[in-house]
Amino acid sequence: EIFGLCFMLLHLFILQLCLLNSGRTGKVLVWPVDFSHWINLQVILEELHLRGHEITVLVPSQSLLINDTKVPYNVEILQLSVTKETFMEELNTILYEATFALPKLSWWEMQMKLANIGRKFLLTTKRVCDSAVTNKELLSRLQAAKLCAGLPMPSSYVPGVTSRLTDKMTFIQRLENWLLYTMNDMIYSYYVFPEWDEYYRKPITLCEIMGKADMWLFRSYWDFEFPQPYLPNTEFVGGLHCKPAKPLPKEFEEFVQSSGKDGVVVFTLGSMIKNLSEEKSNMIASALAQIPQKVLWRYTGKKPETLGANTRLYKWIPQNDLLGHPKTRAFITHCGTNGIYEAIYHGVPMVGIPMFGDQHDNVVRMKAKGAAVEVDLQRMTSADLLHALKAVINNPSYKENAMKLSRIHHDQPVKPLDRAVFWVEFVMRHKGAKHLRPAFHDLTWYQRHSLDVIGFLLACVATVTFLVTKCCLFFCWKFGKTAKKKKRE
Amino acid sequence: EIFGLCFMLLHLFILQLCLLNSGRTGKVLVWPVDFSHWINLQVILEELHLRGHEITVLVPSQSLLINDTKVPYNVEILQLSVTKETFMEELNTILYEATFALPKLSWWEMQMKLANIGRKFLLTTKRVCDSAVTNKELLSRLQAAKLCAGLPMPSSYVPGVTSRLTDKMTFIQRLENWLLYTMNDMIYSYYVFPEWDEYYRKPITLCEIMGKADMWLFRSYWDFEFPQPYLPNTEFVGGLHCKPAKPLPKEFEEFVQSSGKDGVVVFTLGSMIKNLSEEKSNMIASALAQIPQKVLWRYTGKKPETLGANTRLYKWIPQNDLLGHPKTRAFITHCGTNGIYEAIYHGVPMVGIPMFGDQHDNVVRMKAKGAAVEVDLQRMTSADLLHALKAVINNPSYKENAMKLSRIHHDQPVKPLDRAVFWVEFVMRHKGAKHLRPAFHDLTWYQRHSLDVIGFLLACVATVTFLVTKCCLFFCWKFGKTAKKKKRE
Repeated sequence: EIFGLCFMLLHLFILQLCLLNSGRTGKVLVWPVDFSHWINLQVILEELHLRGHEITVLVPSQSLLINDTKVPYNVEILQLSVTKETFMEELNTILYEATFALPKLSWWEMQMKLANIGRKFLLTTKRVCDSAVTNKELLSRLQAAKLCAGLPMPSSYVPGVTSRLTDKMTFIQRLENWLLYTMNDMIYSYYVFPEWDEYYRKPITLCEIMGKADMWLFRSYWDFEFPQPYLPNTEFVGGLHCKPAKPLPKEFEEFVQSSGKDGVVVFTLGSMIKNLSEEKSNMIASALAQIPQKVLWRYTGKKPETLGANTRLYKWIPQNDLLGHPKTRAFITHCGTNGIYEAIYHGVPMVGIPMFGDQHDNVVRMKAKGAAVEVDLQRMTSADLLHALKAVINNPSYKENAMKLSRIHHDQPVKPLDRAVFWVEFVMRHKGAKHLRPAFHDLTWYQRHSLDVIGFLLACVATVTFLVTKCCLFFCWKFGKTAKKKKRE
Repeated sequence: EIFGLCFMLLHLFILQLCLLNSGRTGKVLVWPVDFSHWINLQVILEELHLRGHEITVLVPSQSLLINDTKVPYNVEILQLSVTKETFMEELNTILYEATFALPKLSWWEMQMKLANIGRKFLLTTKRVCDSAVTNKELLSRLQAAKLCAGLPMPSSYVPGVTSRLTDKMTFIQRLENWLLYTMNDMIYSYYVFPEWDEYYRKPITLCEIMGKADMWLFRSYWDFEFPQPYLPNTEFVGGLHCKPAKPLPKEFEEFVQSSGKDGVVVFTLGSMIKNLSEEKSNMIASALAQIPQKVLWRYTGKKPETLGANTRLYKWIPQNDLLGHPKTRAFITHCGTNGIYEAIYHGVPMVGIPMFGDQHDNVVRMKAKGAAVEVDLQRMTSADLLHALKAVINNPSYKENAMKLSRIHHDQPVKPLDRAVFWVEFVMRHKGAKHLRPAFHDLTWYQRHSLDVIGFLLACVATVTFLVTKCCLFFCWKFGKTAKKKKRE
């Protein structure tokens, strides 16, 4: 018997925890999502393991980051027909499209393309599910997930995912945001989700299954996200993976110390995009060569010819420890949620080079809060990047705003990880915590928006207007007839 | 300079704290509300005082509960032209109307009457403000306050205040709830609030001033309230005044112990209604006389003739300590928020006799959660009360549900009082915590609901339809003409 479901909505993807026991310690069945989302979930699972829960993680054999030898809990490998290579190839095609093909499209084409990419990604993942033993696994995009969670999202001040808008919008932006919401509703209901609905005994849909989640953990918080309405069965646990910096390995510490009072810049575009074109990497390297700071660049591609003496390439960097180093002046990032949260945690201003997915939305948030400058990967010149870097390093407002976000992040009554663990255990203790579930889920879409009520009232008004008009016309006609008759007489 | 405003929305009324300093300790200026709301605020102020903040409470001279000799912080008495007697008399008239005149009215008359009572109460309070030194004082009803706080309140599953509805509504109930929301919007905007708007330099309104609050503390939580959407600058701190039971005074302990294994029933109708009619009190007493439990009844009126040997009258009872006593089997209550929270805290099932204000809504919540039975003060017979009491005491489901609520109440990562204090200090530390303020407040009412966007789109559709129709008609006419011409030829 499943006593509770916990969806870990980690900004873009959701993970499912089945909580199988409601005692003081329980059995937790985990269907994880790969990539950066695993980083967050792993932190929660380690804590749950320390607290005595029995954890089983179902790892698909094509998994990239999840390494069964490292984790201290049960791992069931699901042998899939998809090989790691095929999966990676498919994924790289999707990512390449998202990064380089999208920015050239019109708004409308981009939305359709995004929906297509979302669908492709889900289908790739569905092939994993198809090969798996259980049919309760779900994952989907944030947009749809917030929909299914029942969060009220007034389009007037809550910018939609992929909108790249802030919470302060002009009329045209609100129009755009409204269209985005409406279109995504339809796209996900009629195009992306139906592929998944076949898993369930009709008439249950993917969205209804997701609506059964007892608790939603979101990978953001108010140091990062714009204020928006939420519900009692949601917790915002952004930055739960952040921790104080450890001392750097000797090689790194020596290089960092050699920067003197100018300090260093940390630069990574994440683990998803491996290489840039030679032209791009040369352009970036020549900008980096012009700043007095030393630069640590995580890059696995060919060494650019224009690489300055101040810049060193690394296959791997201790990112969190570098960001927490007192000599770090700025962070050049692709704006993944995990990297941004580490920068917030340590109060480091950012130069954002967003590439795909939520990264564009993320940089909008950091810009709106005054802690980042954005440069466009497609159109940027060497001068643009240099200008952005100089602004972030030399204009003290960026550092101040980054520190402000850091203070907000650290000033919570309970730390994000402890809150995440508390609410997962809470769902176990209170057998699903049904008292937190909004009545929203029991309504149809037109009931939720009171459309039946408004329709009924409009019908009443129409009927009354019709009757009054008819009566008036009747009396006018009657009166006219009498008047005519009198006149004739 | 005021660094932050904290509205303490204590279920029905709001209190304002001006936070005058943003250091580690600050100056807090408090404009309190009397009656049960003071009980909650006092607990918060004591904690803030212990933490080194300098607290000044502005106490109107007509104040009833606030006793300046008892509090350990600065008290400024505002000498008002209103005497305690006049104020009490006015208030009693209002309360009498609310308790005994209201239930006889139709739904529509009741809503108008309630608005009138609200307005009268506000005017009575306004006379206090008129006499006072400062003009920033505000208080108002929850309904309006939630409106001004910007909480999204979907009428389809969030029952309105005074609606007496649960979160599971039929079509007719949703219709009623929608009408209630719409009517209250209008009544408060055009009838109740304008009296207050004159305090402010135009064009600022009371609602706009309330919208400036940086933090809202609500006197409820999910052990009590139905799940509803809320915003990052709100905290639900219901039950913050609750504490473990102390040993009873000797007189009480002896009476309670004399009940044997049957236990005792605690009965109070609160401090606002002093006396019942002789008929009512006799009817109640005769019901109480028929149960095997001993009854402790807080009652200051004339001793009823039908009073049983098992019932004792008291001018005052140690309510919290009695509710926490292991021999207590049930609580007969007027359903004030504070009393209900003490019952939840100690897991005691209730018989609710709601009288006015939010009490009807409160009992609806306790009934929906299976922890209470309601009896109607106007229409109840001795048998009704006896039946309700027997159900609550003998049917174990009521005790189980009360214990379930108690477990939920005690299972919070941070206690309600600590959360209240944390967020008040948070507003001080972060100079108003503007990052928690939803962009909602910067929009007009039609922007908030995207009516301009929807209107624009409808206008577009209408224009296109008009043009297409015109074109069609033109071509039909053109074609018709050609056809005719051809025919003629």
